[in-house]
Amino acid sequence: MTQRWLSDLRGEIDTLNLDILRLLQRRAEVVLEIAAIKRRENLDSYEPSREEEMLRTLAAAPSGPFGADEIREIFRAIFHASLDIQNRERTRAMRTRQRGLVPPGGIRVRDVAVGAGQPVLFVGPCSVETPQQMDTIAAAIAALPGAKIFRAGAYKPRTNPYSFQGLREDGLQLLRATARRYGLPTVTEVLDTSTLDVVAEHADMLQVGARNMYNTELLKALGKVDKPVLLKRGFMATLDELLLSAEYILSNGNDAVVLCERGIRTFEPWTRNTLDLSAVALLKKETALPVIVDLSHALGRRDIMLPCARAALAVGADGLMLEVHDRPEHALSDGFQQLDLDEFSALVTGLGLAGATAPHPTAIRGPR
Amino acid sequence: MTQRWLSDLRGEIDTLNLDILRLLQRRAEVVLEIAAIKRRENLDSYEPSREEEMLRTLAAAPSGPFGADEIREIFRAIFHASLDIQNRERTRAMRTRQRGLVPPGGIRVRDVAVGAGQPVLFVGPCSVETPQQMDTIAAAIAALPGAKIFRAGAYKPRTNPYSFQGLREDGLQLLRATARRYGLPTVTEVLDTSTLDVVAEHADMLQVGARNMYNTELLKALGKVDKPVLLKRGFMATLDELLLSAEYILSNGNDAVVLCERGIRTFEPWTRNTLDLSAVALLKKETALPVIVDLSHALGRRDIMLPCARAALAVGADGLMLEVHDRPEHALSDGFQQLDLDEFSALVTGLGLAGATAPHPTAIRGPR
Amino acid sequence: MTQRWLSDLRGEIDTLNLDILRLLQRRAEVVLEIAAIKRRENLDSYEPSREEEMLRTLAAAPSGPFGADEIREIFRAIFHASLDIQNRERTRAMRTRQRGLVPPGGIRVRDVAVGAGQPVLFVGPCSVETPQQMDTIAAAIAALPGAKIFRAGAYKPRTNPYSFQGLREDGLQLLRATARRYGLPTVTEVLDTSTLDVVAEHADMLQVGARNMYNTELLKALGKVDKPVLLKRGFMATLDELLLSAEYILSNGNDAVVLCERGIRTFEPWTRNTLDLSAVALLKKETALPVIVDLSHALGRRDIMLPCARAALAVGADGLMLEVHDRPEHALSDGFQQLDLDEFSALVTGLGLAGATAPHPTAIRGPR
Amino acid sequence: MTQRWLSDLRGEIDTLNLDILRLLQRRAEVVLEIAAIKRRENLDSYEPSREEEMLRTLAAAPSGPFGADEIREIFRAIFHASLDIQNRERTRAMRTRQRGLVPPGGIRVRDVAVGAGQPVLFVGPCSVETPQQMDTIAAAIAALPGAKIFRAGAYKPRTNPYSFQGLREDGLQLLRATARRYGLPTVTEVLDTSTLDVVAEHADMLQVGARNMYNTELLKALGKVDKPVLLKRGFMATLDELLLSAEYILSNGNDAVVLCERGIRTFEPWTRNTLDLSAVALLKKETALPVIVDLSHALGRRDIMLPCARAALAVGADGLMLEVHDRPEHALSDGFQQLDLDEFSALVTGLGLAGATAPHPTAIRGPR
Repeated sequence: MTQRWLSDLRGEIDTLNLDILRLLQRRAEVVLEIAAIKRRENLDSYEPSREEEMLRTLAAAPSGPFGADEIREIFRAIFHASLDIQNRERTRAMRTRQRGLVPPGGIRVRDVAVGAGQPVLFVGPCSVETPQQMDTIAAAIAALPGAKIFRAGAYKPRTNPYSFQGLREDGLQLLRATARRYGLPTVTEVLDTSTLDVVAEHADMLQVGARNMYNTELLKALGKVDKPVLLKRGFMATLDELLLSAEYILSNGNDAVVLCERGIRTFEPWTRNTLDLSAVALLKKETALPVIVDLSHALGRRDIMLPCARAALAVGADGLMLEVHDRPEHALSDGFQQLDLDEFSALVTGLGLAGATAPHPTAIRGPR
Repeated sequence: MTQRWLSDLRGEIDTLNLDILRLLQRRAEVVLEIAAIKRRENLDSYEPSREEEMLRTLAAAPSGPFGADEIREIFRAIFHASLDIQNRERTRAMRTRQRGLVPPGGIRVRDVAVGAGQPVLFVGPCSVETPQQMDTIAAAIAALPGAKIFRAGAYKPRTNPYSFQGLREDGLQLLRATARRYGLPTVTEVLDTSTLDVVAEHADMLQVGARNMYNTELLKALGKVDKPVLLKRGFMATLDELLLSAEYILSNGNDAVVLCERGIRTFEPWTRNTLDLSAVALLKKETALPVIVDLSHALGRRDIMLPCARAALAVGADGLMLEVHDRPEHALSDGFQQLDLDEFSALVTGLGLAGATAPHPTAIRGPR
Repeated sequence: MTQRWLSDLRGEIDTLNLDILRLLQRRAEVVLEIAAIKRRENLDSYEPSREEEMLRTLAAAPSGPFGADEIREIFRAIFHASLDIQNRERTRAMRTRQRGLVPPGGIRVRDVAVGAGQPVLFVGPCSVETPQQMDTIAAAIAALPGAKIFRAGAYKPRTNPYSFQGLREDGLQLLRATARRYGLPTVTEVLDTSTLDVVAEHADMLQVGARNMYNTELLKALGKVDKPVLLKRGFMATLDELLLSAEYILSNGNDAVVLCERGIRTFEPWTRNTLDLSAVALLKKETALPVIVDLSHALGRRDIMLPCARAALAVGADGLMLEVHDRPEHALSDGFQQLDLDEFSALVTGLGLAGATAPHPTAIRGPR
Repeated sequence: MTQRWLSDLRGEIDTLNLDILRLLQRRAEVVLEIAAIKRRENLDSYEPSREEEMLRTLAAAPSGPFGADEIREIFRAIFHASLDIQNRERTRAMRTRQRGLVPPGGIRVRDVAVGAGQPVLFVGPCSVETPQQMDTIAAAIAALPGAKIFRAGAYKPRTNPYSFQGLREDGLQLLRATARRYGLPTVTEVLDTSTLDVVAEHADMLQVGARNMYNTELLKALGKVDKPVLLKRGFMATLDELLLSAEYILSNGNDAVVLCERGIRTFEPWTRNTLDLSAVALLKKETALPVIVDLSHALGRRDIMLPCARAALAVGADGLMLEVHDRPEHALSDGFQQLDLDEFSALVTGLGLAGATAPHPTAIRGPR
């Protein structure tokens, strides 16, 4: 008996659902008509006061089992879904574009393709220091097989104003000269719109550091530069925020963006930051942009580099960033987390990258 | 012209809104009928599979501007609101009860009323150590005016198994004997259901430490004890979780619960934890349960105790917990954060509590 | 000229260093003599007041370039190192023991060895619900190759007192009966000392949940039980705290402890918690205890399970914990994060575990 | 007998302590001589390789109770203390300067003094929107007694590139014109070095937002501007980092820096960020720079504004920042956290600021 009652009542619910849906779809059509008019007249599509007015009217309607809170909850969902079909076209377009805009051959940094199947190593010292240091390190990197981009900081965003701030323009020239000698593409950090031009002139790829992920003026300016950008996640940034920062660059015209997870700030003291590898899985799912992992800054220690590098590649990272120094104990910055050349070589071997060859060498390594 | 169009279209939206609402209210009535049947038949009120089935049916309906995602979003809100009016009666009842169940005279711990207007100091050493220590500290506390509860740990939840674990039952007896000598009520921590009886026998108030806030078996058992409970927020617990833990005690029959904010774990190293005073404002708003602030554990340092104590009282705290020791540098635990007796006396003076008298002495300090 | 001066001055520094070291070693000998006397006389080895007295004396000595702060810093290091050679024998012993106590064949849960080379799946539904549910899931698990332990909760530590709390003893019996039918060992959570005996009677392995990692009374009691323990990291616990919690169990006599990383609480909303895989690398380095990863609780979503599982194995995890349900949308708890049986099967295939065979079947799968 | 032994042995320790100290002070003298030479010769004062060499020598010395780890620990402390007396003169100077450089009359923003005893309200809408909006809000603010600075954003650092980005230069002009009409000083955010000049031309005080706290190029440039700076703590920044960011401005020549706590990012969802009031107590202790609290961004909700404002003043804040809008529900940004004019007026009354008069009106409110 009960079961019959239940099924009758459920039948009535099913009918009501479809009636409600029909009205909702009609409502959505009217909403789109209004949006079209507003667009023509250049009016703002979002009017919170109009929503408040509608909620007041609804609250004054004859009462029923749903109280004011539930009515508000449901109609907010209706308003939200209506905004979606009007304005979130842009957001949907954003994600779709983020998914679609990377060419199948990956993002090219000179003759190296990032995101094209073969993991790329972004490797070099924390800072440009001396010609000898740069030459020794570049030679060691170039000698190893696999795809590599030479990294070193010329403009250093140091927390302490009395720490070494980088060789600036001299560092850029030294980085370029050394890299050219060994046929390596370069990536280096750009700190500010005022030095963007000079960095873009010397480097093959421009890095936005974790501290600058929210620097919207810099991001906009990078959108207008004809060089690929390496965008690091802020150390307390959500993934949604990272993708919105990427969109500042993409929507200003530069499609060549590589994302970089570099650890987030938590309460755990045994690592400098906490490496967030599920972030890589999520970013790979949400966008088609290549994603690399900066192990040196995430971990801040050398002894667990190899297993963590394995895990980063296993989760799908398109590359690894590693700080390498010929004499880490002499480094002018972050010596404790930089690998020496032997450790670096052992890591490459341990990862099985030493013997790797590019999967499609002709496709991605042609002259440029 | 445009404006007329807009207002016409808006008029149609207003009509559609009311039509939708009417159907929603009818739907809600049917939902409540179903819920009543299920209650009678002792069936589970929540059936996710039924929701999935309805969503599938709706997705198969003739299409319109709203796509599958928006339909899902709106109907999930409808399902959620429907669950609210069925099942969240309990949650609503919970909060209402939490708001209503504290008597106007506050929660009594022997002759001290917590939450009755006058700030109460929960004060004493981290651990019960020796008769001399306990006597010296209790004498100093008792000598100061104002409402005080004597605190000291007999069972210590130490992170390190080789740290001092407390005097256990001997500590309980010493705490009680000392407190009785000076007419002070006592609060001490209970770690586990297996020692709940002996702690309840000796102490006037039972403390649940931050590490035990999620210990549901202990919380349930405390709901059946005829002693007030001091429930500390876990150092990484949301406020919602704290109130749900309180509800474990309240719903099992014990209405005398005092909440305690004691700092949360963040990345900031200059304090042991981060004192969260907006939590106090929120807890005071969400419930009628008294709320106190444990400054010693939140800060882990003595030098900013006074301004932070002022802020805690200003935000509305009903009391402060402070660790005080006659010789902090000799303490068997947490010496660095315990005030010495002079510092404690200066703090009480600085807060203007020294000259305070109970607002309604006859009401809350009668014999018991 | 300057270089000579520098080398002369450096020579003097070298001599002073050795003189200082000689005095330090003599001082250490005296410290050990004192410690021996104290041990004989059963006195406390750590006297902070004595340290304060020494620092006062030193501060009163004739001044030099080092001020009070630097003297304090250096002598605190001396005191600390002195405590090390006295008391930290125990800590050193602790870590050494943690490194040494796991047998080469791993920790056996009936005929499954955890930490013996082959990854073990800890798999089953969040909660024991019905005989049909348990049978369907167990059959599917048993049908797949590889090492598996059947998991399901009978006592559920739910945040909300009105959520489903588990079938308790009935659940234990159902778990055991089902598992025996399919030859699977079982693991289930124990919430409290009061129910430890009954859980230990029914389950092959006892799980300490994240909420109970600091429950020292429970940990001590588990140290006296003759069953392996699965100890989950608290979601706000440092790795040092996790190892200290393990030590509570080990030092009370139970060597069979498996650690479990299950995500930590951060600000990132796209996952339920943040999976911390560098924690696995660090735990494997610091101890010899097996370490597994609970992906279901760390991620709280199914769509990135496969890449994260790959990363967990790549970083060195000895096993994975996964929640699997025959009908996740009907689950009485955590339905959104439980894999259905097809998803589970696909995951096992994707990980390449489907065809895996135990490396040393005779060694670890003998009758018991 | 034992006690005599102990006291003899302790006497020997005391003698050894003083001998060690004597050698340490001699060593420190040599260290300072070396540092002087290096400074003359422009050599780097910190040579990690030299430290490694010394540690190797010490490790090779005849052994004793201290092992290699303890020797390393103690000598690292000696090296560190030696670096302190050489190089940390700068850090010490930094803090001393931070403590000393604020004039007793506070930091003047036109005729309003921040940090001179009377709390200052930094108040206005999130964004400059329209002339009517600005006029209505400014009129309401000007009508209330007490010290006020008019705030509104012209350049908005929005997370989403499609959110309203501010009226930019038009907004600056409207802000200034409105403020002048009502005799209010202004503060507004500067996002980047490229727009620094134009912002500095129009505003009385320049705000560095939380997202820009690590933007060292902007901080350096602000050090050369003749306007006071309001420096907000990054929502993931430690207090040490905040003070180092302040030092970037101070050390480049601008002494007029006001610090602003605005909430940190934690796991608690009931507030937008977590208000960190112990930070205010610590900043007031560590520096003499004025400290204000941005309640709107810290809390993200209006209902607990009053108790939290009381707490902020009680802990020692020199001012409060509050977002106020004439029609919050119409605001182009952050409507949900902006007070309306009635709420703002009630807050000022609730804080007892409504009737407040400047403590030294002639001293701090003279013409400029």
